[in-house]
Amino acid sequence: FVNGKFCKDPKLAKAEDFYLSGLNIPGNTSNQVGSMVTQANVQQIPGLNTLGISLVRIDYAPYGGLNPPHTHPRATEILVVVEGTLYVGFVTSNMDNRLFTKVLHPGDVFVFPEGLIHFQFNIGHTNAVAFAALSSQNPGVITIANAVFGSDPAINPDVLAKAFQLDKNIVNQLQSRFWWDNN
Amino acid sequence: FVNGKFCKDPKLAKAEDFYLSGLNIPGNTSNQVGSMVTQANVQQIPGLNTLGISLVRIDYAPYGGLNPPHTHPRATEILVVVEGTLYVGFVTSNMDNRLFTKVLHPGDVFVFPEGLIHFQFNIGHTNAVAFAALSSQNPGVITIANAVFGSDPAINPDVLAKAFQLDKNIVNQLQSRFWWDNN
Amino acid sequence: FVNGKFCKDPKLAKAEDFYLSGLNIPGNTSNQVGSMVTQANVQQIPGLNTLGISLVRIDYAPYGGLNPPHTHPRATEILVVVEGTLYVGFVTSNMDNRLFTKVLHPGDVFVFPEGLIHFQFNIGHTNAVAFAALSSQNPGVITIANAVFGSDPAINPDVLAKAFQLDKNIVNQLQSRFWWDNN
Amino acid sequence: FVNGKFCKDPKLAKAEDFYLSGLNIPGNTSNQVGSMVTQANVQQIPGLNTLGISLVRIDYAPYGGLNPPHTHPRATEILVVVEGTLYVGFVTSNMDNRLFTKVLHPGDVFVFPEGLIHFQFNIGHTNAVAFAALSSQNPGVITIANAVFGSDPAINPDVLAKAFQLDKNIVNQLQSRFWWDNN
Amino acid sequence: FVNGKFCKDPKLAKAEDFYLSGLNIPGNTSNQVGSMVTQANVQQIPGLNTLGISLVRIDYAPYGGLNPPHTHPRATEILVVVEGTLYVGFVTSNMDNRLFTKVLHPGDVFVFPEGLIHFQFNIGHTNAVAFAALSSQNPGVITIANAVFGSDPAINPDVLAKAFQLDKNIVNQLQSRFWWDNN
Amino acid sequence: FVNGKFCKDPKLAKAEDFYLSGLNIPGNTSNQVGSMVTQANVQQIPGLNTLGISLVRIDYAPYGGLNPPHTHPRATEILVVVEGTLYVGFVTSNMDNRLFTKVLHPGDVFVFPEGLIHFQFNIGHTNAVAFAALSSQNPGVITIANAVFGSDPAINPDVLAKAFQLDKNIVNQLQSRFWWDNN
Repeated sequence: FVNGKFCKDPKLAKAEDFYLSGLNIPGNTSNQVGSMVTQANVQQIPGLNTLGISLVRIDYAPYGGLNPPHTHPRATEILVVVEGTLYVGFVTSNMDNRLFTKVLHPGDVFVFPEGLIHFQFNIGHTNAVAFAALSSQNPGVITIANAVFGSDPAINPDVLAKAFQLDKNIVNQLQSRFWWDNN
Repeated sequence: FVNGKFCKDPKLAKAEDFYLSGLNIPGNTSNQVGSMVTQANVQQIPGLNTLGISLVRIDYAPYGGLNPPHTHPRATEILVVVEGTLYVGFVTSNMDNRLFTKVLHPGDVFVFPEGLIHFQFNIGHTNAVAFAALSSQNPGVITIANAVFGSDPAINPDVLAKAFQLDKNIVNQLQSRFWWDNN
Repeated sequence: FVNGKFCKDPKLAKAEDFYLSGLNIPGNTSNQVGSMVTQANVQQIPGLNTLGISLVRIDYAPYGGLNPPHTHPRATEILVVVEGTLYVGFVTSNMDNRLFTKVLHPGDVFVFPEGLIHFQFNIGHTNAVAFAALSSQNPGVITIANAVFGSDPAINPDVLAKAFQLDKNIVNQLQSRFWWDNN
Repeated sequence: FVNGKFCKDPKLAKAEDFYLSGLNIPGNTSNQVGSMVTQANVQQIPGLNTLGISLVRIDYAPYGGLNPPHTHPRATEILVVVEGTLYVGFVTSNMDNRLFTKVLHPGDVFVFPEGLIHFQFNIGHTNAVAFAALSSQNPGVITIANAVFGSDPAINPDVLAKAFQLDKNIVNQLQSRFWWDNN
Repeated sequence: FVNGKFCKDPKLAKAEDFYLSGLNIPGNTSNQVGSMVTQANVQQIPGLNTLGISLVRIDYAPYGGLNPPHTHPRATEILVVVEGTLYVGFVTSNMDNRLFTKVLHPGDVFVFPEGLIHFQFNIGHTNAVAFAALSSQNPGVITIANAVFGSDPAINPDVLAKAFQLDKNIVNQLQSRFWWDNN
Repeated sequence: FVNGKFCKDPKLAKAEDFYLSGLNIPGNTSNQVGSMVTQANVQQIPGLNTLGISLVRIDYAPYGGLNPPHTHPRATEILVVVEGTLYVGFVTSNMDNRLFTKVLHPGDVFVFPEGLIHFQFNIGHTNAVAFAALSSQNPGVITIANAVFGSDPAINPDVLAKAFQLDKNIVNQLQSRFWWDNN
């Protein structure tokens, strides 16, 4: 066991430990945010353990499919668009909180540096598809809205009302909603 | 120059390069969130470059001074309370988004793992003061609400309305507000 | 400058530093080995510097397009097939030198661990296309045959005759050939 | 188990794993060197494992309480004085062995780079207190005099007599003494 | 267990865990390549685990003893000649594949950077002996010819014929040979 | 420049950047401690920069040549004896400060873990010679006695008298001595 994952005796490893199928199958985007992330990390491919890389396929519904603002606490991401048109961006750290954005078409590549809040938004009339690689075999994902308003148990609403400059009523409403997790 | 910082010829380094004064002076908490972070990282102490650690002092106003939900993209934090009573917490990654909280008193220590969203909230009747160490000489800070609703330029409001399940009107209002940055 | 690359003042960075277009364009596979690798690393995307990841698109001609046995001295590779049928494999270190292979179809993912000799071979009747991510912004490539028989200047042929159990005549012939580099 | 410490299934972790109390309690400085170090590392806080940081509180008796010359084999240290007046210093590597010193007052911060010999000495008339953070969850401490003259078993006295330019009699005396360990 | 190796409770460790004897004994060079590598890594010295270094002794037969072209997937090598005359070299990555060589005499030191193909060849009339250190406790070795032509099972000969510009007959002959492994 | 060293454009690098001669020449051991360390690190071999390894030759005079107690702040050491008989040892961290020792003969290997105090002592009637590798291109050396009693300027003698349980007179004498540095 290393990093909580089983490490095979190299003599017992086999090709299947380094293999995964299914990234040709579109993810189901019929959900709140209109997107779905299909993972290929150490959970699915045990041979990735300690190797520092993983992959995802992301599907976006037409007219607004959104991979909502999120961070990867342990990874940089590099994304290539295979199909569709995506408006993508990331926000830099304090004090500036500068937004860097691009509209991406098939074959375009964009980088989201480690730990920064980023998103992709399908602004086209068709499905969009991208592959993205992450610089960790276990990168983690924190969907910002879900972690803030959908945590279990709920964060003290006074904290969120003050931090987000929202009425406590609105915070309470948000905290009672269902927060769908696309990955 | 290493990491964008000047690296002195070791023969020219002097004690002042490893020194900073002023962490005894309370930060001014008369602001939107009622807190202030005073930094002691590689910006203030050039000798920290490449050494992988830094320090902050955090002051919290009585009755609700808040260090609002934020992440450090490149650091774990360990905090010790010197004065006052703090309700602190962090939220784990997807899918669970579990909230871990504690009420801390002087001498209590709490750890906020790398990249996770966390906060401290003064629930006492007096000022609160803490020291916190970070596992990077340049840890970075992303105040979640500021980065999301106060970025420059603003994120497309359709993205935020969908991600945060908020009326676009409210998103527009939030984006027009002033987002004070406590560090 | 970090790692021999220019590091911009973060205040001067812009979205273009994190962007590249053109990975939708098939590489020209009319060459000796019938394959072409199109790179998206720190050479093309300056914003990748220090971030530990990069991407390539690989095109393979039908009926035998080959990405010949090679290593990445500083990276693990994870590959996803977009089109076509590939026979892929890697060989483990001494003493065993075990060969791990798979036939991959669209949507199949395979991992080539850091530093091991690996290859992909188009065994289908159509073009094949794959994207592969590498766990370094500057992974390097060593095409084995080219480095061994096509180095500049040539390796002493006695070394190669003994190591590869080949007639010195054959070594001399090989060393006088042109070794086309697909990346 | 990672690094010899138990790694919990994240689903079983709880807030207590990231928490420690008691750093408000002064350490007992009634000892040979007049100082005491209270630890907050992975031994006391299991949630710190793999996170690369830890904390200590250091108490110094008035008129000469000493945290004697020592090294941390795996960590840089950053210290902030909370109370009292400390003369602190570190010595650089060969050939120069330059001594860098400062007199610190409350709120002053000083950095001791990884692996270098350093000390703190209370030159005031009152107790002194400092917090120090270390860039490892398990930094280790080597008190120089204790490791050299108080090892178990003793180092061959000829080695120490020659290295420290001391009479063998004095070495023998030193090796028969009790070496109190303040941490 | 860390990295697949047993990690002792430090209280149970003893001097023998950090010790190995026998590097004064010449390796038997009566073999196909006329060389032998004697290892001192974590397999032989359990105390090396996690410490990032190891050692080898290499013996070369007179008149052509060869440590054939190989890579270390996880280590840089630094070699010092103790006896004899060696022609040594390494080849840089694509595109250039530059060969760097030197003739080394006793007391000469040469560096083989991580992951690059390198070799040593005894061009003298006497035995040659070298010590080499590697920047990993478990550096791994890939003897190029053995991994390419002697893998188990064999690589598809069409792959090797195309990659190495060799007749398929010759590839088949090579694949049926015995490939002796000198380490 | 990386790590304060010039990094050549790889196209301008040449074999000499990876080469050093002279480790066959015995170091002059006619000095206070009867030993001499000859270095082969990034200062002498510019091509070692960023590669994480270096080498030394150590010569010891007969009847008591001593490489006195020292630490490497950034490296583990692995040593092989080429000639003579050495009594070697290292001391573990607090609280135990256990001494691990061995008597080494030609061909014996011993490991000194990162940051720990260690020494080698020639207990034979002949010269002794060893090669040692270090897990850093710039490992640093801190000779304990020299750094403690021979620093420039001197450490406050009250600190050393208390830490080492020595008369202040003796401390003053020691501080006025010449401390010869064998590397």
